[in-house]
Amino acid sequence: MTRPLIGVFDSGVGGLTVLNALLRQVSTADYLYFGDTARLPYGSKSVETVAKYAISAVQFLEQQGAERLVVACNTACALAFQRIASSIHVPALGVIEPGADAGAAASHTKRAVVIATEGTVSSHAYRDALTERGVTAVEKACPLFVPLVEEGWLDHEVTRHVAHIYLEGLFDSHGPDTLILGCTHYPLLKPLLRTVVPPRVCIIDSAEATAAAVRRDLAGGDGRRPNVRFFATDSIEKFRRAGEKFLERDIKDVVHVDLET
Amino acid sequence: MTRPLIGVFDSGVGGLTVLNALLRQVSTADYLYFGDTARLPYGSKSVETVAKYAISAVQFLEQQGAERLVVACNTACALAFQRIASSIHVPALGVIEPGADAGAAASHTKRAVVIATEGTVSSHAYRDALTERGVTAVEKACPLFVPLVEEGWLDHEVTRHVAHIYLEGLFDSHGPDTLILGCTHYPLLKPLLRTVVPPRVCIIDSAEATAAAVRRDLAGGDGRRPNVRFFATDSIEKFRRAGEKFLERDIKDVVHVDLET
Repeated sequence: MTRPLIGVFDSGVGGLTVLNALLRQVSTADYLYFGDTARLPYGSKSVETVAKYAISAVQFLEQQGAERLVVACNTACALAFQRIASSIHVPALGVIEPGADAGAAASHTKRAVVIATEGTVSSHAYRDALTERGVTAVEKACPLFVPLVEEGWLDHEVTRHVAHIYLEGLFDSHGPDTLILGCTHYPLLKPLLRTVVPPRVCIIDSAEATAAAVRRDLAGGDGRRPNVRFFATDSIEKFRRAGEKFLERDIKDVVHVDLET
Repeated sequence: MTRPLIGVFDSGVGGLTVLNALLRQVSTADYLYFGDTARLPYGSKSVETVAKYAISAVQFLEQQGAERLVVACNTACALAFQRIASSIHVPALGVIEPGADAGAAASHTKRAVVIATEGTVSSHAYRDALTERGVTAVEKACPLFVPLVEEGWLDHEVTRHVAHIYLEGLFDSHGPDTLILGCTHYPLLKPLLRTVVPPRVCIIDSAEATAAAVRRDLAGGDGRRPNVRFFATDSIEKFRRAGEKFLERDIKDVVHVDLET
């Protein structure tokens, strides 16, 4: 039995939270991870630019032998998942559908809050996916959360203050009982967000939901530990340093790739 | 007498603070402005990536007829000014030398603080330029200031809190009497920073210092108002919307440019 080779793509290191969940939930596969670190962030960029960058990245992963693609970047999924998926010849899975599935399963009041980048929110991809599942969603852009995570202020009073400002009034009584983290950086803020939203609110992490969806698609295994290779478009040292925080394990053998020449 | 055509380059809209100062101080020239908005920010990227992006941008401006270049991006100047300048055939001016000149002129204690992006700080370009001018500099990376400016929180308690954290202890008595703003976004925080640092501290804005250096190089004029053309690599609508805040006037006729194909 052959082990599937899964390509995971993100604009940077944030998608390593998805790879992290995949390594825990789907140890029967090997992985290629691509971080488009020279051109990140995607969160504030236009549809055309994000689609062009993402397509060049997933086509690179397909050329490297990926038999299945996980688009771990919420912004790329929100803005251009169909275009990205149809640019390659292997199956692709995004993070929004699994996140919406998990959110719909968790919500009793059928009302949810989605926090994400400006690009993801203005596409309304989460709202539309949740509406299809009978859940009414309020979407809120939280542009300072990514830089706060990158500053390492995961349990900091400034971050807590910003979270209170962004989430103020969104969880009124009889309101939403589910918070969907619609950006790969946000799982690192989960412990802090837990203290900001009411205890009755369930926090859904698309990374775990996506890994679970991949696990359902695959079966079996040969007991070997996954082999992982990393590609980045900016400095490999920077990728390693920033990435280990998200992956929660050592990162070795990052290969630099230039998609622009 | 012909009016010189000056090309102004930045990673995004921040360099419009430099164009703003140029339009006020040097109305005898016409301008081309290039914002590499599809690939911003440069502040956290590596030397190789920043140099490659900046060179493609200044070469584009030279092809458009610019007879003189202002590299308004502090990070690009700090990491690769010589490489950028030698990639074109017209004179180039960066923002660091004029900023260091102005800082050295303002400081009586010959001690200054420079705040900038991570990339600019780790290059030590400001420290070295100030040392040459007899000024001892402490450099401090303030990575949250750019996202806070982009969030529009220019006079916000969170921004004030972050500023206090970043600048804590840097202006002890008998210490630095000058604060150099080493990033094009920071002039928008000048009123807030004025309330955070002691009254004796002089705040130096590289944008004004750079415009003054250009003015010294040029003379005369025909009384006509400057003509300005704008180029951006991401959405022109986003450029207009974000840019008017920095330029403090209307932006019309932005042209989209793709440097990657």
